[in-house]
Amino acid sequence: MYLAQPDKYEMVADLARRRGFFWPSFEIYGGVSGFLDLGPLGTVMKRRIIDKWLDTFIRRHGFVEISTPVITPERIFQASGHVDHFKDSMVGCLNCKRRFKADHLLKEAAGIQAEAFSLEEIEQTIKEKQIRCVECGGELSKPEYFSTMFRTTIGPYSEAVAYARPEAAQGMFIDFKRVYETQRERMPIAIAQIGTALRNEISPRQGPIRLREFTIMEFEFFYDPAEPTCPYINEVAGTEIRILPLQLRNKGTEEPVTVTVRQALDEKYIVSEWSAYFMALSQQFMSDLGIPITKQRFHEKRPNERAHYSSQTYDHEVWLNRWGWIEMAGHANRTDYDISSHIKDSGSDLTVFKKHDEPVVRKVRLVRPVDSTIGPTFKGDAARVRQLLENAKTEDVEKAIKEKGFYVADRFKLLPGHVKFEWTEVKESGRRFVPEVIEPSYGAERLMYAVLEYAYMQVKDRVVLNIPVDLSPVQVSVFPLMAKDGLGEKARAICEMLRLAGFDVDYDESGTIGRRYARADEIGVPVAVTVDYETPKDDTVTLRDRATWNQVRTPVTSLVDRLSIFLKKRCAFPELGVPVDVAPS
Amino acid sequence: MYLAQPDKYEMVADLARRRGFFWPSFEIYGGVSGFLDLGPLGTVMKRRIIDKWLDTFIRRHGFVEISTPVITPERIFQASGHVDHFKDSMVGCLNCKRRFKADHLLKEAAGIQAEAFSLEEIEQTIKEKQIRCVECGGELSKPEYFSTMFRTTIGPYSEAVAYARPEAAQGMFIDFKRVYETQRERMPIAIAQIGTALRNEISPRQGPIRLREFTIMEFEFFYDPAEPTCPYINEVAGTEIRILPLQLRNKGTEEPVTVTVRQALDEKYIVSEWSAYFMALSQQFMSDLGIPITKQRFHEKRPNERAHYSSQTYDHEVWLNRWGWIEMAGHANRTDYDISSHIKDSGSDLTVFKKHDEPVVRKVRLVRPVDSTIGPTFKGDAARVRQLLENAKTEDVEKAIKEKGFYVADRFKLLPGHVKFEWTEVKESGRRFVPEVIEPSYGAERLMYAVLEYAYMQVKDRVVLNIPVDLSPVQVSVFPLMAKDGLGEKARAICEMLRLAGFDVDYDESGTIGRRYARADEIGVPVAVTVDYETPKDDTVTLRDRATWNQVRTPVTSLVDRLSIFLKKRCAFPELGVPVDVAPS
Repeated sequence: MYLAQPDKYEMVADLARRRGFFWPSFEIYGGVSGFLDLGPLGTVMKRRIIDKWLDTFIRRHGFVEISTPVITPERIFQASGHVDHFKDSMVGCLNCKRRFKADHLLKEAAGIQAEAFSLEEIEQTIKEKQIRCVECGGELSKPEYFSTMFRTTIGPYSEAVAYARPEAAQGMFIDFKRVYETQRERMPIAIAQIGTALRNEISPRQGPIRLREFTIMEFEFFYDPAEPTCPYINEVAGTEIRILPLQLRNKGTEEPVTVTVRQALDEKYIVSEWSAYFMALSQQFMSDLGIPITKQRFHEKRPNERAHYSSQTYDHEVWLNRWGWIEMAGHANRTDYDISSHIKDSGSDLTVFKKHDEPVVRKVRLVRPVDSTIGPTFKGDAARVRQLLENAKTEDVEKAIKEKGFYVADRFKLLPGHVKFEWTEVKESGRRFVPEVIEPSYGAERLMYAVLEYAYMQVKDRVVLNIPVDLSPVQVSVFPLMAKDGLGEKARAICEMLRLAGFDVDYDESGTIGRRYARADEIGVPVAVTVDYETPKDDTVTLRDRATWNQVRTPVTSLVDRLSIFLKKRCAFPELGVPVDVAPS
Repeated sequence: MYLAQPDKYEMVADLARRRGFFWPSFEIYGGVSGFLDLGPLGTVMKRRIIDKWLDTFIRRHGFVEISTPVITPERIFQASGHVDHFKDSMVGCLNCKRRFKADHLLKEAAGIQAEAFSLEEIEQTIKEKQIRCVECGGELSKPEYFSTMFRTTIGPYSEAVAYARPEAAQGMFIDFKRVYETQRERMPIAIAQIGTALRNEISPRQGPIRLREFTIMEFEFFYDPAEPTCPYINEVAGTEIRILPLQLRNKGTEEPVTVTVRQALDEKYIVSEWSAYFMALSQQFMSDLGIPITKQRFHEKRPNERAHYSSQTYDHEVWLNRWGWIEMAGHANRTDYDISSHIKDSGSDLTVFKKHDEPVVRKVRLVRPVDSTIGPTFKGDAARVRQLLENAKTEDVEKAIKEKGFYVADRFKLLPGHVKFEWTEVKESGRRFVPEVIEPSYGAERLMYAVLEYAYMQVKDRVVLNIPVDLSPVQVSVFPLMAKDGLGEKARAICEMLRLAGFDVDYDESGTIGRRYARADEIGVPVAVTVDYETPKDDTVTLRDRATWNQVRTPVTSLVDRLSIFLKKRCAFPELGVPVDVAPS
């Protein structure tokens, strides 16, 4: 695509590279697409975005966070369905040997939306439309699947295959029971994780948006399907959201509607109350990052557009200048898919037991092992088979035996003679269930880019980065008006004082004061402290606001308190130090 | 090894698992050694350790932090020497097929210290000592090398080999020039990185100590070799450190001596002033983590014990109950090894230019391309060859041509006819140099374990975790004396207030108050807030100190301020709210 003028992405990327937000990785070796380095400013800003995310979704609800490995044995991604489902269709050029993501190629070459196409549909489309290589015009190969997980092996045995995780979720699912126990067996609980995720994309473009390696922030909210209500829902019921549900997409529109969260639930646009609550928080979160609500929307995915584990997915999208609507977060209803899969594959009990107030007597259908056949057939594995049966759902086993004539548990095939079914009366002191799961999931680098794009302003002939003050990587600049006459020493002492108080401070004495203000504005430093010839006389300094360029004088002794309040967005400028209303909503 | 009594590691690991600090990964699938999950408490505590590390080493000096990918193209680890050097010797059992790290096997089977043995020495030792498999007694294979980097490929081309980084350092080296430019070309600078590192150990044991995947915290300090002095050195010159330099090890002792930092420099135990300064900070850092100075030592490595890039390495070791002296950090003098290697391999200019106050005229020896031969020999690559020559050191080229008859740059072989050497007079406006590098490097999970081991106390018949108050994952417990009579509501409101103020709070109303204090002590909550029958009358609560079990009453309105000061270690208990001396040193 030829651009007569640089677009906003190019302007942001140029600034990002020059000043140290981000740049392509491995530059001195020519670069590898899909990898991004965060510079000094980007690293701190990403940490602040993570911190705001933790504040918005995790800490205030008493949710917890864990940390599990990136490298994950193959068996876990077999159980979770990723080995089967986490793949892209790919075509190669027989002439130049380049390889393409098939849907990208079909879109670029013929404007066809092929995201959900099967291999056969891709092959047929290439034939019908006579599509050829977009780079050299060569003939294309048959399409094939390519696993988009990075593959490796653990230790010196080549059969110990493992993958780098494409999401952080599985670590939370397989740890669910242990975390549940550390939380004194309360329900609901949510487990969050923030860390590296990797997706081995075929040929990523889109700079910081489509990365092979990125930081994922996601949490799994586990709840009792018999108690699906969200106690916080009334806090957001009146909040308006821009939403494009499948109900409307199926009628042919791609224009979102604005409805309240309550309406979205009443109309069944959103199935889960908890999901609706998290989506409302998500909108607030993005707004706090500086992204206007009009540039956000929730876009429901069709069954063939969403992940294999999800029964309903809304992408939380943000409009970006170069790429249009881009997914910043996914809100997936993962049902009991993952936990049930791991119960089945691991044989571990990941169910939750909830005590009744009074015991209940109930007739239940049970599957039992027939010991006289299980022993001889499975020998040393008999105990394991019994354990697998104990954790299996009776109805699943009965259905499989009836319909297929056998039931498979792990690697064992059970025939009708191995099991018997019976009705029993049981006195239940409680109820055992598999929790259902709602998952909001975010990509940190995309968010960082979106913040920069929306913060980027041209004011007169220069750039001001209007980053929300609580996200700015450098919080305070300290300038001596001149480096001489003791002003430099005084400014350095103030810089040191502010650093020890925990602020991120930049000290700059080079060039004119105007140039230094401009440099600070360009990276979004919210406030500058200037030491001038008044300072030695009365120990006051000038504070300058990036957003308004207003200035006020303040005593050095008041700096730490006033800046703390201002940087937590708890007062306006120039009323630095006068708190605005911060009562919890 | 059979243990009659649980050792301290087992006690800590049991607590860690039950309460949610850490446990082995992939447990429900039987586990894979060398991987560790951090639970809700461990994740927060690791973050606090990282934050303290940033405070100690990075923020106060105005150093910067970046973030680069885990997955790294092979070419970079070829340049850095890791492809050649990052490997372990391994032997397998011909009978049971198990594989062993050779030095571990020799130590376990025959008590031989074989860390620095070559393959030949290992083979000979096995033969001489008639060593057999320690598991089954089988015959052992010939030793071979095993790369301890996880290998994968990027994208759909199998030749695009990449490795998961075994250290974060290379990202900082290849980004050095760009970061230097964002820092207005100041020297010295330091670049830090905190992130995942992976080492594909052959058969890791030692639980949380030897991990295949872990969080590394390291920084590269770049300085002008002509200006090696450290302006902070006088702040630590009188600090005593426990050190075991090679000078003494070579005389046969393994007992450290206690000397001041100044003495360590005067005796040339430590070569670099900056390194000595960082080692002193490192000792302070570990002490702040609760590890007594008597349980720390700096242990210098022999040339064959240290990494290929280092001219001097001190391990900062801590004594652990089960494993003895264990490396928590490495202080390496990486010289200009890495930067020079990347200059050579990438052809990029990573040197620093320093302007003289006055221009200097100097005679210099220069290597120049002979255009009439370079062109015909290298054709399309001629320009590249010229660029490589321009960045090469004349003395290196001249030496190679003289001694070997050729010089290799990247993949090009230059013969005597391709180059000429000449003396020229140049007027130098400044000096160009390759910066030298000091690297302190830490493993976050090991540190977390060491903190827990030193915090673990048995008081009477129960466990108190004396974690330094600024590292405790849960900062405040809130208890209603009884859940009824409105005390529960009041306590939950206080919990909510403290969470909104940014504290990590646990609310607990189950069981007797004594049991709840015990539960809080066991995970090291520094202070408990109890709402009792006085609270509704005068809006005061009881604060209880974990360390002394002292209690004081305080108004609810004073809680946020008093707890903030206490948790920053800025006052003692019970004088909560009365700041102790916090003047910067």
